[in-house]
Amino acid sequence: MIIGQVIGSVFSTRKSEKLIGNKFMIVRPEKSMKADGNDLVAIDIIGAGIGEKVLVAEGSAARIGCDMKDAPVDAAIVGIIDEGQELSD
Amino acid sequence: MIIGQVIGSVFSTRKSEKLIGNKFMIVRPEKSMKADGNDLVAIDIIGAGIGEKVLVAEGSAARIGCDMKDAPVDAAIVGIIDEGQELSD
Amino acid sequence: MIIGQVIGSVFSTRKSEKLIGNKFMIVRPEKSMKADGNDLVAIDIIGAGIGEKVLVAEGSAARIGCDMKDAPVDAAIVGIIDEGQELSD
Amino acid sequence: MIIGQVIGSVFSTRKSEKLIGNKFMIVRPEKSMKADGNDLVAIDIIGAGIGEKVLVAEGSAARIGCDMKDAPVDAAIVGIIDEGQELSD
Amino acid sequence: MIIGQVIGSVFSTRKSEKLIGNKFMIVRPEKSMKADGNDLVAIDIIGAGIGEKVLVAEGSAARIGCDMKDAPVDAAIVGIIDEGQELSD
Repeated sequence: MIIGQVIGSVFSTRKSEKLIGNKFMIVRPEKSMKADGNDLVAIDIIGAGIGEKVLVAEGSAARIGCDMKDAPVDAAIVGIIDEGQELSD
Repeated sequence: MIIGQVIGSVFSTRKSEKLIGNKFMIVRPEKSMKADGNDLVAIDIIGAGIGEKVLVAEGSAARIGCDMKDAPVDAAIVGIIDEGQELSD
Repeated sequence: MIIGQVIGSVFSTRKSEKLIGNKFMIVRPEKSMKADGNDLVAIDIIGAGIGEKVLVAEGSAARIGCDMKDAPVDAAIVGIIDEGQELSD
Repeated sequence: MIIGQVIGSVFSTRKSEKLIGNKFMIVRPEKSMKADGNDLVAIDIIGAGIGEKVLVAEGSAARIGCDMKDAPVDAAIVGIIDEGQELSD
Repeated sequence: MIIGQVIGSVFSTRKSEKLIGNKFMIVRPEKSMKADGNDLVAIDIIGAGIGEKVLVAEGSAARIGCDMKDAPVDAAIVGIIDEGQELSD
């Protein structure tokens, strides 16, 4: 998993019907986790807000681990990092 | 998932028979999403046009989430981004 | 998927018995698709020749989509790009 | 798999209920294994301590290989590297 | 798959019991295959020696294709490249 910050969300009206009801959050990985230029779009099963630091699972873990095994989802916010923790940036 | 722009399509006459009937779109990821030099080829289940910004799912999510679980597909356009949204580039 | 050019093949006499009968082609991705230094080895279910531009599927799509679900294969040539098409390089 | 050093851990109170009971360790890959800026968060099924060098499995291997096949987990510490071994850095 | 050279091995006494009996080989990918700084650890089902050039499968292909479907393994040596072949470096 990686840790990143929710920097926004994005809307898609015309989409796979399996994605209906999901929010698409844009997550910017911590600098220590990924080089620049690697934001990703993740669904959010936790209810994260803009600016919060979150734990993101990628690949089949996102799909299967979030009970969406038949949906075209490859990244999901699966936890919110507790505040006040130092992450090595 | 990542967001990118459809910049073209490509034709393949000699291909896996499991791919027959699919369009192969060339998608250029947003600069904030991927470093330069990472265009990818995705099937399109939504009907995106050249120039549109799209949501792309990669890996087994593309195959299974698009009801093509037995096909050699590792990327799919699964949504079209609504116009007028600011993406942090 | 990505598009690349078949630049050679490689032989392996001592290998997993599940790989017997397969050709291992070396594919060099288009510059627009991957940064330098990212050639990969793919099995070929289509019959591509040296110099041809091909469509390559990676990950579980290669294995499952090419009816080799029990074989240690993570990349496969699944189509040959029709000649005369301009790819944005 | 890659080898890295456990450099810390991180807490998440609001998280997927499938993740309850897991420790999230921050692992910094060996320089020879990954370029800078690629720390990752892995669950730990072995009981590694800060500073120890560990073997990390990624992708579906982490989830399925650690008996958490329904959890949103994409990286796991699956071994502790014996001390005194030279790793080519 | 990628081609790399076996440059060493590594021992782990405290590890997942599903990994018992496996050798962990350190493989350095060919320069044409991966940029610097991308060595990986692979199990070896073929019996490769230090210095030999090998074919490595990654992801679920390593686990499933090597009859270790329940083990936390994401890379495996699945063939030894015949000597005397020119690889484009």
